Amino acid sequence: MGNADYECPHRVAIPPSKPLFKALQSSFKETLFPDDPFRQFKNQPLAKKFMLGLQYFVPILEWAPRYTFEFFKADLIAGITIASLAVPQGISYANLANLPPILGLYSSFVPPLVYAMLGSSRDLAVGTVAVASLLISSLLGKEVSPYENPTLYLHLAFTATFFAGIFQASLGILRLGFIVDFLSHATILGFMGGAATVVCLQQLKGILGLIHFTHETDIVSVMRAVFGQKHQWRWESAVLGCCFLSFLLLTKYFSKRKPTFFWINAMAPLTSVILGSLLVFLTHAEKHGVQVIGHLKKGINPLSVSELAFGSPYLSSAIKTGIITGIIGLAEGVAVGRSFATFKNYHIDGNKEMIAFGMMNIAGSCTSCYLTAGPFSRTAVNFNAGCKTAVSNIVMATAVMITLLFLTPLFHYTPLVVLSSIIIAAMLGIIDYEAAIHLWNIDKFDFVVCMGAYTGVVFFSVEVGLVVAVTLSLLRVLLFVARPRTFALGNIPNSMAYRSIDQYPIANNVPGVLILQIDAPIYFANSNYLRERIQRWIYEEEEKLKSSGQTSLQYIILDLSAVGSIDTSGISMLEEVKKNSDSKGLKLVLANPRSEVIKKLDKSKFIESIGQEWIYLTVAEAVAACNFMLHSCKPNPAAVELQGRENMV
Amino acid sequence: MGNADYECPHRVAIPPSKPLFKALQSSFKETLFPDDPFRQFKNQPLAKKFMLGLQYFVPILEWAPRYTFEFFKADLIAGITIASLAVPQGISYANLANLPPILGLYSSFVPPLVYAMLGSSRDLAVGTVAVASLLISSLLGKEVSPYENPTLYLHLAFTATFFAGIFQASLGILRLGFIVDFLSHATILGFMGGAATVVCLQQLKGILGLIHFTHETDIVSVMRAVFGQKHQWRWESAVLGCCFLSFLLLTKYFSKRKPTFFWINAMAPLTSVILGSLLVFLTHAEKHGVQVIGHLKKGINPLSVSELAFGSPYLSSAIKTGIITGIIGLAEGVAVGRSFATFKNYHIDGNKEMIAFGMMNIAGSCTSCYLTAGPFSRTAVNFNAGCKTAVSNIVMATAVMITLLFLTPLFHYTPLVVLSSIIIAAMLGIIDYEAAIHLWNIDKFDFVVCMGAYTGVVFFSVEVGLVVAVTLSLLRVLLFVARPRTFALGNIPNSMAYRSIDQYPIANNVPGVLILQIDAPIYFANSNYLRERIQRWIYEEEEKLKSSGQTSLQYIILDLSAVGSIDTSGISMLEEVKKNSDSKGLKLVLANPRSEVIKKLDKSKFIESIGQEWIYLTVAEAVAACNFMLHSCKPNPAAVELQGRENMV
Repeated sequence: MGNADYECPHRVAIPPSKPLFKALQSSFKETLFPDDPFRQFKNQPLAKKFMLGLQYFVPILEWAPRYTFEFFKADLIAGITIASLAVPQGISYANLANLPPILGLYSSFVPPLVYAMLGSSRDLAVGTVAVASLLISSLLGKEVSPYENPTLYLHLAFTATFFAGIFQASLGILRLGFIVDFLSHATILGFMGGAATVVCLQQLKGILGLIHFTHETDIVSVMRAVFGQKHQWRWESAVLGCCFLSFLLLTKYFSKRKPTFFWINAMAPLTSVILGSLLVFLTHAEKHGVQVIGHLKKGINPLSVSELAFGSPYLSSAIKTGIITGIIGLAEGVAVGRSFATFKNYHIDGNKEMIAFGMMNIAGSCTSCYLTAGPFSRTAVNFNAGCKTAVSNIVMATAVMITLLFLTPLFHYTPLVVLSSIIIAAMLGIIDYEAAIHLWNIDKFDFVVCMGAYTGVVFFSVEVGLVVAVTLSLLRVLLFVARPRTFALGNIPNSMAYRSIDQYPIANNVPGVLILQIDAPIYFANSNYLRERIQRWIYEEEEKLKSSGQTSLQYIILDLSAVGSIDTSGISMLEEVKKNSDSKGLKLVLANPRSEVIKKLDKSKFIESIGQEWIYLTVAEAVAACNFMLHSCKPNPAAVELQGRENMV
Repeated sequence: MGNADYECPHRVAIPPSKPLFKALQSSFKETLFPDDPFRQFKNQPLAKKFMLGLQYFVPILEWAPRYTFEFFKADLIAGITIASLAVPQGISYANLANLPPILGLYSSFVPPLVYAMLGSSRDLAVGTVAVASLLISSLLGKEVSPYENPTLYLHLAFTATFFAGIFQASLGILRLGFIVDFLSHATILGFMGGAATVVCLQQLKGILGLIHFTHETDIVSVMRAVFGQKHQWRWESAVLGCCFLSFLLLTKYFSKRKPTFFWINAMAPLTSVILGSLLVFLTHAEKHGVQVIGHLKKGINPLSVSELAFGSPYLSSAIKTGIITGIIGLAEGVAVGRSFATFKNYHIDGNKEMIAFGMMNIAGSCTSCYLTAGPFSRTAVNFNAGCKTAVSNIVMATAVMITLLFLTPLFHYTPLVVLSSIIIAAMLGIIDYEAAIHLWNIDKFDFVVCMGAYTGVVFFSVEVGLVVAVTLSLLRVLLFVARPRTFALGNIPNSMAYRSIDQYPIANNVPGVLILQIDAPIYFANSNYLRERIQRWIYEEEEKLKSSGQTSLQYIILDLSAVGSIDTSGISMLEEVKKNSDSKGLKLVLANPRSEVIKKLDKSKFIESIGQEWIYLTVAEAVAACNFMLHSCKPNPAAVELQGRENMV
């Protein structure tokens, strides 16, 4: 009891350990219910609870009673605007997925209706998305050729959509939405950029009027396919494509400069389709190498429940496709919904959104739709058009329904090259190189993750890009824990604060005392590292003191403020550090161990071995105690112990 | 500039950002060279540098000049003791690996010599290990039957050993030794216990004298194989086995009670082998169902370089087996070496050890040895026998060499059942249930990891156990980052310290101010969670204040002391939190951002948006500033802003 004379001003509290069940319960709640969704249910009568529960799962019940005619006027305009975008985009993306074009229209009818009832975003416009379409064609296309066996391919696409829905809904119901968080912003940025690049490259087929094309999506294969059949290029198609692409890009540029004219940009795709169709119809260009959509069946979505291919030998690839497209759809959709909610300052519940996405895809897979999500472009148009609630989705669905019932024959002469131009124009907006530069400026590692995803997608495949980016992101987290920073602290003049000497060069060393701060939980992954690093700190400090002839080192204070947790390997590490410093005649002192840490140190008897009186609430108090011991006549208790031991030997 | 009147006592330093190359260099050094191995090379002449470098890679050059006769006497005794253990253990483990028994002796000859030159541990006794032997038989046995094609199996075992050596040495040379750290103590404990259980179960074959047995290692298959052929059980074998097992366990128990008689335990296996062989020789029990080793070739290790099967179609399984056994061997060996080094208070360099292990396995694979590592049992005997340096390994190797040259015929009549008893007796010591109970008491999660590894190995397979345990361990790290704890802080009476109210119930709330501490780096994996959780803190605090009629909430102080790092997703999260609190009329204040964090906040202009004057060095100073603002006549600047905005609307 070396410092019995020194009165410690504050004791470090060792909270009583909770009973196992309670501890489990509270950590379960913190992990899965951080937003405490049940808080509004507390102290309510049963009927009210039921009503609130229903409103929780079907948000339309919550906001419909407050719906006004003013809102409807705004939603009507927004809905018609996005419908004019949805029809050509739907056909284009279905084409990209190698599915019948009509599926793009079907997919803009049923899913938006389901989302309007269950979704919590007021701005999200539901529809098919380019990246998921590309993924379906590349993942399913590997197994079943869409040209040789279109029916099986179609059925597998429905099945994949079904499993995507099941997966999305289960994530939401099991409150595992945080899995989506592991796709960091940088990952999504790089992945989307890469996918958009790949999608643009794929459109060279349509623009150049090629008939045969590669199934691969990487840039090398695509370029080989394009330049390997130069003699097949159709100049008529290429000229048409360039004209429409320029038109679309010009309108986009114009709308960006003058946001009030957003509708020009929104209407441009439909205008292109109408102009293109008229042109083909009048010039009979379809007989001169310009491919057209051809016959589209009239009528709304036929049921497709019986077409879900649960018994197919390709079921596993359908499930895989469903899970990958489902998680990508969710990641984009939830991120889009969340950003627009932040604009308008309302709250979106990620888990609820996942259930809504899942239900709309399950319903979609039974009604001849393929995977839908919340595309950014359509949502941005919806937002700019002034939508107020999800009713704009209902308006869009109605407009699409009218198209399906009466207007499909009009698309017979629509040239595929126009659809390709529409896709390219939309995709060029997704390649957000400015955001990548921003990442480079702020966080180099995020930039590396982003570029990893991008190059993985462009040069290898969509899955490779995703795996590379997620692995890099996780590696960063693991590296943070595996190689925590340690800092030597010094006293900030005129204060009781002790801060890193690196960050605050004005901070003063305390003679004879080495204060170290550890910056991460002490886990198995870093305990060996920390032991070596602490030894090196001590060695370096001793060398420095020796060469400058100052007081020799007597105390090591470990500031555990930033150590959130410890495991058994970490405790062994501390025990070894204590043993090592004892053998060198140094006294180990702990400052500010947190409740998790002190509980475990107590249970493992480490506190007994170090002595409760050598654990302080703050670094300042630890330093004061050390100074008191250093300057009182008594020698350092650890040194005395050591001497005693040496005498015994 | 709300608090322009208030003079901030200390500024938070924003360290200048390092040039990219320098930053990369320093983080590279911290990651791969935390022990700064080059420090002794600094300011030395070239010749000295060369000598030091040679000593670094061949430690025997460093300690051999200081070797004394006293040391040799101790090492001689220890070496002979471990040799008497090495011979029967070597034969037993080779049997377990389904390899020719003579390989066990070969493996105790060359590798110990290599290790003695390159290794840095003074206590480690080199030899084959049970778990790696089991792994070889289960991983290679899946591909090639050791009974039907013993030559190919043997060659694959050499090849696997070669790749294990290459893998171990490269880990060391590339300084990637920290990969082994990801096998936490709990993982190894559970894994070793499970493997020992499985090994014991396998010995039922030898004990019961069964001829046919399953290739599976899981408990269900083994039990089915044992009880499925009850009529094949040989009572002679079983009786012999039980007798020897009791003898071995009794000597072990006795030696444990009286550590000075450690040699009784060490000699027991050899005694059993001699007694068993004599018994069989005298009673001709080999003709009554007791299987014996049979003919062992005389002579030292033949070369096996030409037998490395690089061209084999099974090369990939050999590589896989090599990597798995190599990493398991390393994990056990380095841990064993490290623990004994801690006892004797000297330092072991993990990366250097890996190179030594790798070289000894490469050399071994060329001289008819299979995988060797540092078995715990043999090392403990070595330590107890009073070894001083790695010379005890040289003594052991010499003794084994003499056995190989002259004594192999003596093992002709050694019954297999004695070998099984030796393995069981060794394995029972490895099942460390007390350590598992210790884990349960201190850290429940570590216990779960341990049991995951154990049940995975026992009920499924060795690989499943390993994968389960590593996944669980990594999941824990990820969960720590994905769900960081947040705490409300209060003032500890009579101090400037602010601590978690959970841990220190005496801590006092500051009226009108919510102080939150975040306990982990703010990364993509937790930024959504933190946003929700901070919102909930604010909501709950407001509810509490409303119901108690106190001052309404005006300030939120985020204590970033424990936030070691931030990425772009984290910065977006802070921006959203600021936006949300602005919209509620709350002012966001930061306390003690660390150098990594403040640099990025500065680059991303977040500091500009929050105002440099709202960032404080300590929580106490932030609280003082908030209190000054609250009690001066001026209203809260954020509230003023908000009012202004509302007036504008």
